[in-house]
Amino acid sequence: MNDDYVRVDEGALRDYTAAILRATGMTDEGAVAAAAVLVTSDARGIESHGVARLPQYVRLIDAGVLDAAAVPTIEREGAATALINAHNGMGQVAGDVAMRLAIAKARAHDVGVVAVRNSNHFGITGYYAMLALEHDLIGLALTNSSPLVAPTGGRQAMIGTNPIAVAVPTGDGRPFVLDMATSTVPVGRLEVHARKGLTLQRGWAIDAAGDETLDATAGRAGALLPLGGAAETGGYKGYGLGVLVDLLTGVLAGGLYGPLISGLWDATAPSDLGHFFLALNPAAFGPLDRFYERARDLIRRLKAGERAPGVDEILMAGEKERRADDDARVHGVRLYHSVARALDDLGERFTLGGLPTHAEGSTR
Amino acid sequence: MNDDYVRVDEGALRDYTAAILRATGMTDEGAVAAAAVLVTSDARGIESHGVARLPQYVRLIDAGVLDAAAVPTIEREGAATALINAHNGMGQVAGDVAMRLAIAKARAHDVGVVAVRNSNHFGITGYYAMLALEHDLIGLALTNSSPLVAPTGGRQAMIGTNPIAVAVPTGDGRPFVLDMATSTVPVGRLEVHARKGLTLQRGWAIDAAGDETLDATAGRAGALLPLGGAAETGGYKGYGLGVLVDLLTGVLAGGLYGPLISGLWDATAPSDLGHFFLALNPAAFGPLDRFYERARDLIRRLKAGERAPGVDEILMAGEKERRADDDARVHGVRLYHSVARALDDLGERFTLGGLPTHAEGSTR
Repeated sequence: MNDDYVRVDEGALRDYTAAILRATGMTDEGAVAAAAVLVTSDARGIESHGVARLPQYVRLIDAGVLDAAAVPTIEREGAATALINAHNGMGQVAGDVAMRLAIAKARAHDVGVVAVRNSNHFGITGYYAMLALEHDLIGLALTNSSPLVAPTGGRQAMIGTNPIAVAVPTGDGRPFVLDMATSTVPVGRLEVHARKGLTLQRGWAIDAAGDETLDATAGRAGALLPLGGAAETGGYKGYGLGVLVDLLTGVLAGGLYGPLISGLWDATAPSDLGHFFLALNPAAFGPLDRFYERARDLIRRLKAGERAPGVDEILMAGEKERRADDDARVHGVRLYHSVARALDDLGERFTLGGLPTHAEGSTR
Repeated sequence: MNDDYVRVDEGALRDYTAAILRATGMTDEGAVAAAAVLVTSDARGIESHGVARLPQYVRLIDAGVLDAAAVPTIEREGAATALINAHNGMGQVAGDVAMRLAIAKARAHDVGVVAVRNSNHFGITGYYAMLALEHDLIGLALTNSSPLVAPTGGRQAMIGTNPIAVAVPTGDGRPFVLDMATSTVPVGRLEVHARKGLTLQRGWAIDAAGDETLDATAGRAGALLPLGGAAETGGYKGYGLGVLVDLLTGVLAGGLYGPLISGLWDATAPSDLGHFFLALNPAAFGPLDRFYERARDLIRRLKAGERAPGVDEILMAGEKERRADDDARVHGVRLYHSVARALDDLGERFTLGGLPTHAEGSTR
């Protein structure tokens, strides 16, 4: 694996990504929304969900499995709730529309809940939760995904890594942003460990026989463990959270769920994923400035606590990603050479010219 | 520890518990509500949060730290939201009032969110989430609690075990009921292990120096680890969930939070805990019967999955507790002799006569 990278201006990368997506048949609005989700992921240091996925999205569109041109529609609507049909379009487009609708409802009625059906992979879950922040709202986003995690006591992958994201504004530009898969680790972690010949940690995976394994290749052939790992270390809680996400997304919205969902990048069948978005107005419960003061005070106290041996800093949810984002804003978004080359190839195919880059660098 | 128990008729135990609570100065309505929470906990096999706590509640009331006679009031209210002041009364009373208000709002507007401040320990979190079930609603309940859990990277107990409970109806009387602390284990687990001289599991606790420990006594002197355990096994996710609960309870409602909360049974200062309740109408997103079919189908598929070696059954969240509850309904609620004696003592003090019992039994 080559750890060298190039730096690309964030705005330029967004424009370039949007241009590629437009070329696949997406609406201008949809392409801009989806590009923002993908580039934000890279800027926050979550390369696994960023523009590196563009070739795979394009492959699904080429195969006719994902409808790039789809425009989400509202199928049901109440004052504080709505159901959106993504019409098998990009998950990022439906996610953006749905979260903004939840936000509008929360601005009008203090709380808004929007479910989405017939959707696809939507990138980082935290992006949607964070859309609430600029409106002084608390945001929550959930999605189901293809089966990778075994139930506690089971040995087959039956549910997705079904992430939960919640963003809580604190009034100082340093929000609390929890964005977590309900498995202990993402499947990519096993892939990297297998490639590098590294031993897994306990609580990460089981082998095909259902026994916990520290062997990455055996883990890849088995299944991920839910957050908490084995039952005696609380794995049934992570499993419960994963099932909960399935119940509030695919089951609630009327899409697929659990083992019915096909592989993430499987170009043979539509995903029919479900998402769930909620926005909540903290000002409905008291003065906003007092809420912010308490939130910042809690965070300050937690960060000021005594540290365990060898620990430099107690981090809050989203803090590391915010720092990466700040860095990307100033110095450009980091892209591995392999990713930059893949984007160049897509640009060539769609006659957009090459990726505009900043400077070279290395993480080594 | 004596594992012998008596069986007490559930209705009789509820009446007896309510009579004790009324004798402490609680309103009739409040006593009945609080007794239902406590006895449901015992019936579901969660003795740690049941009537065994009655002497401790009475001690807080005797000390003037908890106001038994307090009646919760609504301080702020919108169409879909409300803030309730518990006036330092029993958490069960405020919790019951608040969740029922969230349910009423969800029946009218499809979603209701009610926060509570100035409250106390409210027993099992799942009880409140489950109140939504009989109304065909999804229920969520959260509470903060006294510091027992160390932040990831920290070595002091800074946040509570801050539980999350969600109940999802399935139309067949077998709901999904997730009721989980955001720590790997409850502190009582360490106490039992210390008493029995047993070794802890990894991911449960750290010692006072901040290093992970398998020694129960050292763990008691240190702090609990969040769900996931150490950072490399996802402990920062459990920690993030715990902080999230504090943000949505004490911080949102305007009570105490994190390290500011005093000890659970500390009779020197009011707890000023915060709770959060949400009810959501699944029928707002599509036909209820189809939602129920999908939910049951997901559960059926998960339970029918291949099992890991030595596993008899794949359990769903709340399944074990529902079976205990079914058993208690028929054969009576199990109470350890020590608990039954403590209730007898309270009955004597308040001249209520002794606890009505069924039969003897033993878990040994």
